[in-house]
Amino acid sequence: MTTGIRVTIWNEGVHERESEEVARVYPETLGGQLAKAVEGKTGIASVRCVELDDEGQGLTDAILDTTDVMLWWGHIAHARVTDENAERVQQRVLDGMGLVAFHSAHKSKPFRALMGTSGNLRWREWKGVGEKERLWVVDPAHPIAEGLPEYIELPHAEMYGEHFDIPQPDQQVFISWFQGGEILRSGCCWHRGQGKVFYFRPGHETFPIYYSEAIQRVILNATRWAAPTRGAHSPTRGNVPPLEDMG
Amino acid sequence: MTTGIRVTIWNEGVHERESEEVARVYPETLGGQLAKAVEGKTGIASVRCVELDDEGQGLTDAILDTTDVMLWWGHIAHARVTDENAERVQQRVLDGMGLVAFHSAHKSKPFRALMGTSGNLRWREWKGVGEKERLWVVDPAHPIAEGLPEYIELPHAEMYGEHFDIPQPDQQVFISWFQGGEILRSGCCWHRGQGKVFYFRPGHETFPIYYSEAIQRVILNATRWAAPTRGAHSPTRGNVPPLEDMG
Amino acid sequence: MTTGIRVTIWNEGVHERESEEVARVYPETLGGQLAKAVEGKTGIASVRCVELDDEGQGLTDAILDTTDVMLWWGHIAHARVTDENAERVQQRVLDGMGLVAFHSAHKSKPFRALMGTSGNLRWREWKGVGEKERLWVVDPAHPIAEGLPEYIELPHAEMYGEHFDIPQPDQQVFISWFQGGEILRSGCCWHRGQGKVFYFRPGHETFPIYYSEAIQRVILNATRWAAPTRGAHSPTRGNVPPLEDMG
Amino acid sequence: MTTGIRVTIWNEGVHERESEEVARVYPETLGGQLAKAVEGKTGIASVRCVELDDEGQGLTDAILDTTDVMLWWGHIAHARVTDENAERVQQRVLDGMGLVAFHSAHKSKPFRALMGTSGNLRWREWKGVGEKERLWVVDPAHPIAEGLPEYIELPHAEMYGEHFDIPQPDQQVFISWFQGGEILRSGCCWHRGQGKVFYFRPGHETFPIYYSEAIQRVILNATRWAAPTRGAHSPTRGNVPPLEDMG
Repeated sequence: MTTGIRVTIWNEGVHERESEEVARVYPETLGGQLAKAVEGKTGIASVRCVELDDEGQGLTDAILDTTDVMLWWGHIAHARVTDENAERVQQRVLDGMGLVAFHSAHKSKPFRALMGTSGNLRWREWKGVGEKERLWVVDPAHPIAEGLPEYIELPHAEMYGEHFDIPQPDQQVFISWFQGGEILRSGCCWHRGQGKVFYFRPGHETFPIYYSEAIQRVILNATRWAAPTRGAHSPTRGNVPPLEDMG
Repeated sequence: MTTGIRVTIWNEGVHERESEEVARVYPETLGGQLAKAVEGKTGIASVRCVELDDEGQGLTDAILDTTDVMLWWGHIAHARVTDENAERVQQRVLDGMGLVAFHSAHKSKPFRALMGTSGNLRWREWKGVGEKERLWVVDPAHPIAEGLPEYIELPHAEMYGEHFDIPQPDQQVFISWFQGGEILRSGCCWHRGQGKVFYFRPGHETFPIYYSEAIQRVILNATRWAAPTRGAHSPTRGNVPPLEDMG
Repeated sequence: MTTGIRVTIWNEGVHERESEEVARVYPETLGGQLAKAVEGKTGIASVRCVELDDEGQGLTDAILDTTDVMLWWGHIAHARVTDENAERVQQRVLDGMGLVAFHSAHKSKPFRALMGTSGNLRWREWKGVGEKERLWVVDPAHPIAEGLPEYIELPHAEMYGEHFDIPQPDQQVFISWFQGGEILRSGCCWHRGQGKVFYFRPGHETFPIYYSEAIQRVILNATRWAAPTRGAHSPTRGNVPPLEDMG
Repeated sequence: MTTGIRVTIWNEGVHERESEEVARVYPETLGGQLAKAVEGKTGIASVRCVELDDEGQGLTDAILDTTDVMLWWGHIAHARVTDENAERVQQRVLDGMGLVAFHSAHKSKPFRALMGTSGNLRWREWKGVGEKERLWVVDPAHPIAEGLPEYIELPHAEMYGEHFDIPQPDQQVFISWFQGGEILRSGCCWHRGQGKVFYFRPGHETFPIYYSEAIQRVILNATRWAAPTRGAHSPTRGNVPPLEDMG
């Protein structure tokens, strides 16, 4: 159906440089580890990592023009992404680009702009070790559940809990259980314009979550799901003549 | 369940002053005519009309603090609403205020911010007389369909057609048929945060649509539906201790 | 909007007679305790309890003709409800009657027929004392969340866990956390035909859950939400002439 | 992601034998023409046509065991499909098989059982020539819209109009405009259990609709979309021990 998905991984890239602990967990950066989930897999044409400190914040037209699906990891530098760049990403999604937003990206500018809500939630990073999270598949018919067990267990995770201020998902794939007593809608699908958005909760920078085989499978599935649908042409907008004889 | 809904009708108020034709159709302004749909009805505590040229663009804290549901009619002056005021309206909806957006409000700043999409669509105002529109009830169980016939027929309407760039509605109440060959998702419900949003297509300024009894019934039903849900308290956000013993 | 909701509580009524333990927890029967949540409340016109062993299984035309919302509690005798009666309840919902299905009613004939799925799930009744359940409000804008805290905690509950084989809810109001590690979509809304269906998980017969003030509030809210929407007339079906001049 | 979709086309096969007119329009049967949309296409492993008069009504275990996606065309002989066979098809969908239901299949037993509603609607076959239908793409991001124009125009179609008694679609892909003044939700997606269901309105037996290139594209897209998602194993049901230490 496609000649292959061109993936761009946008990684904030700040924690890895400022924290030895994060650099130890993700020596190839968070973006580099996300890349391993998709590189060389069936249906994936190319994988590229960009960062906030790259030219044009890694969001130039040259990059966006050659991106089918963008994976987004950001946390402490959301505010540094310019409003113009956030709007460009939003517009690209409306034009068909897929966006897979991870973890703290619930507060990133492009995700919030696409949702229209605050993205606020409860959270907790328990004593540096986190707590157990169990992601339950609640829609086993969904392509993002392909090849997965009934649930994915993460022994050490930051907690994100409800109420999570997002629009009701078009499709709910995962809901998380947390040891401390909370739950979260943790795998959520939306269409926006001609594009698709998937939010996936896991991925705190100090826990080796992106090494999990099941999590890698979700990342691959979500990337495939988010691939652009190519219509014969884009929808017509604006003032149009009638299609029927108006007498 | 409530002690009565305090309704604020926000009307742009430009057409009525600049166009004799509009002033003839809506001598008491578009806002004034919308008010007639809700004034004195069961469950409605108060109705107030404000306009763009009022102090603070009619969107001061004093007004928003005493508004349960806001009805919004705007068209040619969307850009004059300040970004700050649009954000304030958006935030109020997330905090529980209902928003009923009419007709051209699909391109208003608060509606677009809450949707995250462009709101773009096809449109046509046929030779000054418009064309026939028939709004079909596709969800007869929905409270906004209370007391309505199977469809509402408008002999003279501006056409708005698909693709309409909005998120998939949480609930779809009306879909419109147009004489010229198009259709539109014309009555759409969403929850956003603690608040509710209803988009209702009819209402071109040169057609006497808001005098229709059936349309007035929809306006009343939508206002009641959009009334705030009052939880025992607002959702907790931010860093929280665990609810369970973490050992 | 209505002259008051006529509530019929359909209670299987078997456990209370066969088990002293259940009779001790619910001396006035489960139906009788459900009734306390709605009796005498604003908007409720009447409340009546019927049981499986009543004439016509409590589902005669005389009863259904005078029911706006039916609350359904059943567990061990689902199979005794005749197929004809289950179909009658299904048809009444399609015609506008509200249905609030509690707990084990996920496997009742009318609920399954309305859903089209098996209703299967994981479950556990832990050592006779159950386990902690915490129902999180994930849609604070929904009328069924009116007056509720952020979550409802039940110290002793039977566990029902995902995957729960139901259609994706039109609106998701509650999601439950369980002590043993599972989650469940535990408060779910659907429209079916001209009627509404709410599934609410809590209510095991050996735990005094229906005495909880918060649970009683949910029952009342759900009953109000499920009240019929009265259109000006029912939708037309079958062969119809064109509405437009076909030349 | 799959080794290829095994398609079974279930065609009632009555009209073609009883009506010369239908046999002239579909000399290779309706099933045979549907097959042309998928045969030999990328991702399709095999295509097989079965009919009501085949052994076991074309719904034997041997057939169902080797079917990934079933296309269903039926009209005047819905009642002849046995309840047992309808339940088998329903169960297969819950177990993962895709179902694409065409045109009059809105009243077929398996579709109705999966929906839980009557499937009733308004209809009209205008003077043997039908009327114009225009199917608008309202979700251009959906994979079923791949390669399509903004709308598909059918010069001669039977009319099916709202209110259409179906559950709110999980995803709405097409909405139809009809010359006679009606609209219909004409391309509708649902997940049911581990399976997917797509309803697609076009396909009256006396009009050569399935020869349309755009319609053929929809059939192919829908077949691909409905392909089973294969989890690592099926969801666990029934009584389960806790996943957490219960003290």
